[in-house]
Amino acid sequence: MPKPLTFAVPKGRILDEALPLMARAGVVPEAEFHDKSSRALSFGCVDPGMRIIRVRAFDVATFVAHGAAQAGIVGSDVVEEFAYSDLYAPVDLDIGHCRLSIAEPVAQASEAPRASHLRVASKYPNLTRRHFERQGIQAEVVKLNGAMELAPGLGLASRIVDLVSTGRTLKDNGLVETATILEVSARLIVNRAALKTDERVAALVERFRALANQTSAA
Amino acid sequence: MPKPLTFAVPKGRILDEALPLMARAGVVPEAEFHDKSSRALSFGCVDPGMRIIRVRAFDVATFVAHGAAQAGIVGSDVVEEFAYSDLYAPVDLDIGHCRLSIAEPVAQASEAPRASHLRVASKYPNLTRRHFERQGIQAEVVKLNGAMELAPGLGLASRIVDLVSTGRTLKDNGLVETATILEVSARLIVNRAALKTDERVAALVERFRALANQTSAA
Repeated sequence: MPKPLTFAVPKGRILDEALPLMARAGVVPEAEFHDKSSRALSFGCVDPGMRIIRVRAFDVATFVAHGAAQAGIVGSDVVEEFAYSDLYAPVDLDIGHCRLSIAEPVAQASEAPRASHLRVASKYPNLTRRHFERQGIQAEVVKLNGAMELAPGLGLASRIVDLVSTGRTLKDNGLVETATILEVSARLIVNRAALKTDERVAALVERFRALANQTSAA
Repeated sequence: MPKPLTFAVPKGRILDEALPLMARAGVVPEAEFHDKSSRALSFGCVDPGMRIIRVRAFDVATFVAHGAAQAGIVGSDVVEEFAYSDLYAPVDLDIGHCRLSIAEPVAQASEAPRASHLRVASKYPNLTRRHFERQGIQAEVVKLNGAMELAPGLGLASRIVDLVSTGRTLKDNGLVETATILEVSARLIVNRAALKTDERVAALVERFRALANQTSAA
């Protein structure tokens, strides 16, 4: 029997929407996957030729880019932030919609100054720098792993770049969205080398692609 | 009234042990801090001249190093990983003990090969590279944010560098500790500029230092 295919999924937000889609594509985790008290990181599947790992979103991309997982699901924000050459994102799954936006304090936004240098707090240093560069602005990015919304009030940065869904967290922290950098949705991602050498990966892509076409045609 | 002093604490492991110590040093968060349903990131204190922010461990160091928080508590693993020049860690609080260790699959460890080049998965790229460099080994670090224990089994890395407390997670994943890089404990950290210019920061350091001396003398 060949080595099981490893499918990587992110903890959190996207997963609830992804599971029904995965099931229709034949990727069904064993019952333990749904046991919230389980400390396991890797799970068997109904198909004995597959296993699922559940890791942080950024790590989904890292496992797949290095071929340690052959396929997975992750937001396009992560795909774009890393821009790994060995990672291919062939199918837009049309789930997990949100946006990567710039936000700043309400009072500051209405002043609308045009600085040539800014300090920005973000989990996405590459996307942030790239966006401001295109506007001729040099952005110094302070990398944070969470709680970006605190940064402007404490003087850590004048702006933040973060995922926005309802906008409630921004509002709670006196911030307002001033621009969208990226419209985000979840993607099926695969390792390029695995796609070329392993027919099971190509078959998986076709199954997810067929599902995505059904949805968009509906 | 001067701007409130901002004290940064990490989510998770260290916090339960830190709170009684903080209370004895006069840093007491408002009741909402203990409300698990609260979405707040910043909290008032019993002392109206202070506030507390609760962020991820790595971000505690970032907020303090940039002076957005004037003081905080974080593990020495984080202090050493960043090596920020503006961050000063004057007091070992003697809590949050664990160690930063190298681990590898049980079978591989018994073979004991001496490679000149290794791939290592870790949340601590700087400490990892530095450790292996001292041994004349070039370590390529794959940065992961969690679930390091999966990496060797999936061929992402031959070794991991991670925090170890009981060792149970390693054992569950067929890994064994082969070396300790750093004995870790929680530290009081302060921003160097704030320590020089704000008497309240110096007073805070003295209070925590007195507490630490009491403990070590007991």
